[in-house]
Amino acid sequence: MEVQAKGHRFWVIPDGYIPPDSRGELVSHESICVLNCGETPAKLGITVYYEDREPLEGIEAIVEGRRTRHIRTSSLESGGERIPAGVPYALTVESDVPVIIQYSRLDTTQPELALMSVMAYPIEN
Amino acid sequence: MEVQAKGHRFWVIPDGYIPPDSRGELVSHESICVLNCGETPAKLGITVYYEDREPLEGIEAIVEGRRTRHIRTSSLESGGERIPAGVPYALTVESDVPVIIQYSRLDTTQPELALMSVMAYPIEN
Amino acid sequence: MEVQAKGHRFWVIPDGYIPPDSRGELVSHESICVLNCGETPAKLGITVYYEDREPLEGIEAIVEGRRTRHIRTSSLESGGERIPAGVPYALTVESDVPVIIQYSRLDTTQPELALMSVMAYPIEN
Amino acid sequence: MEVQAKGHRFWVIPDGYIPPDSRGELVSHESICVLNCGETPAKLGITVYYEDREPLEGIEAIVEGRRTRHIRTSSLESGGERIPAGVPYALTVESDVPVIIQYSRLDTTQPELALMSVMAYPIEN
Repeated sequence: MEVQAKGHRFWVIPDGYIPPDSRGELVSHESICVLNCGETPAKLGITVYYEDREPLEGIEAIVEGRRTRHIRTSSLESGGERIPAGVPYALTVESDVPVIIQYSRLDTTQPELALMSVMAYPIEN
Repeated sequence: MEVQAKGHRFWVIPDGYIPPDSRGELVSHESICVLNCGETPAKLGITVYYEDREPLEGIEAIVEGRRTRHIRTSSLESGGERIPAGVPYALTVESDVPVIIQYSRLDTTQPELALMSVMAYPIEN
Repeated sequence: MEVQAKGHRFWVIPDGYIPPDSRGELVSHESICVLNCGETPAKLGITVYYEDREPLEGIEAIVEGRRTRHIRTSSLESGGERIPAGVPYALTVESDVPVIIQYSRLDTTQPELALMSVMAYPIEN
Repeated sequence: MEVQAKGHRFWVIPDGYIPPDSRGELVSHESICVLNCGETPAKLGITVYYEDREPLEGIEAIVEGRRTRHIRTSSLESGGERIPAGVPYALTVESDVPVIIQYSRLDTTQPELALMSVMAYPIEN
């Protein structure tokens, strides 16, 4: 299908960080926001790179066809291991069908709210 | 015209979210900011993708030639249906002539102001 | 020179807005941040697109070779006309040599500070 | 290795600025977040461009294979010279193997927290 061809299969987010603290009504968090415009469900394989140890591989997630999913990075998990808060890391996401990915962070460490967002960086493949 | 050829016809914003709350003098909102450098008006067709139900299709908007329009997502509407606040979603925008699109969000849920902005992701077509 | 070839000659920023108010020690402003990696000075021609009137054309600026310039949009001027605050607009920047452009906004309308930044959108030419 | 081919070798960040002030528990800072997906360590050569003087060249950094590094710009140094706070500048980063780079700034000049982030701009080479 033509619409299934929209997007790329490999995306990168170099600046990952789960803020350890929150104040006020909103909880500090990050999300990877995935859009699957096609009919076929997208199977994602996520790798977490750290500064000082081996990557955490084998994290899986599904995004159904014609759906978006805004996935909190704190929910990602592989073999019982999760991404620790307060640690700089980076993410790669591989999908078996083309998708489009944006990364956003909401930080309430100091009493008010800060936001940042980038499109994930697509690698041609 | 050469200038009409500037931009792409299909753009994607995976991280859509209309903050349900506002404080202070500024109202929480998102905008899709469209620039049409050419002479011909651009007819936009917008689709809203959700996490848990079928997409909302058939939203239309016009951007006149040699004009910009900063369109609040809360104003988008198709068959009486609008994008609900407080719900994660994603947007695609198709245009019949090339345009350039940027997405920005202003959030005043906690008393102060937070901003984020990304270029929409262009799909070659 | 090889380094002069770095960048593009036509860049677009769809979401321009000079916040009309400021609080605290920092003044609300936007900047277009231009890097000229080459030896030859870059002559920029800037056009401002509005929602409801003809574009403001013929704004000029120079970025010397091997220099950056972070240009406040409120300083841009053509024939005595400037970009009004509090009005949505869009910008295109043409350069006679390749440059790289990023756009950032600092908003202190509500007492605290908000920041947003995007790479300008490059058009191949 | 196939994975080593992911990314580009030349990246640009036009809007650099180290905020001179901080309040609250978080210190104002900027980081360049580099991901090296390959096996081979990446040797980075960083150049700092200013508005009014010659570039600062010859800054070096290493990112090990299958690691990320979130490098504070205030730590960069060449011949005893560092990037001064409170001065607009721009950065280029060259790597001997492909990497992906994101730039983020956290500003606590006014009591609360502001964040901005962009992917660095990749130059084909």
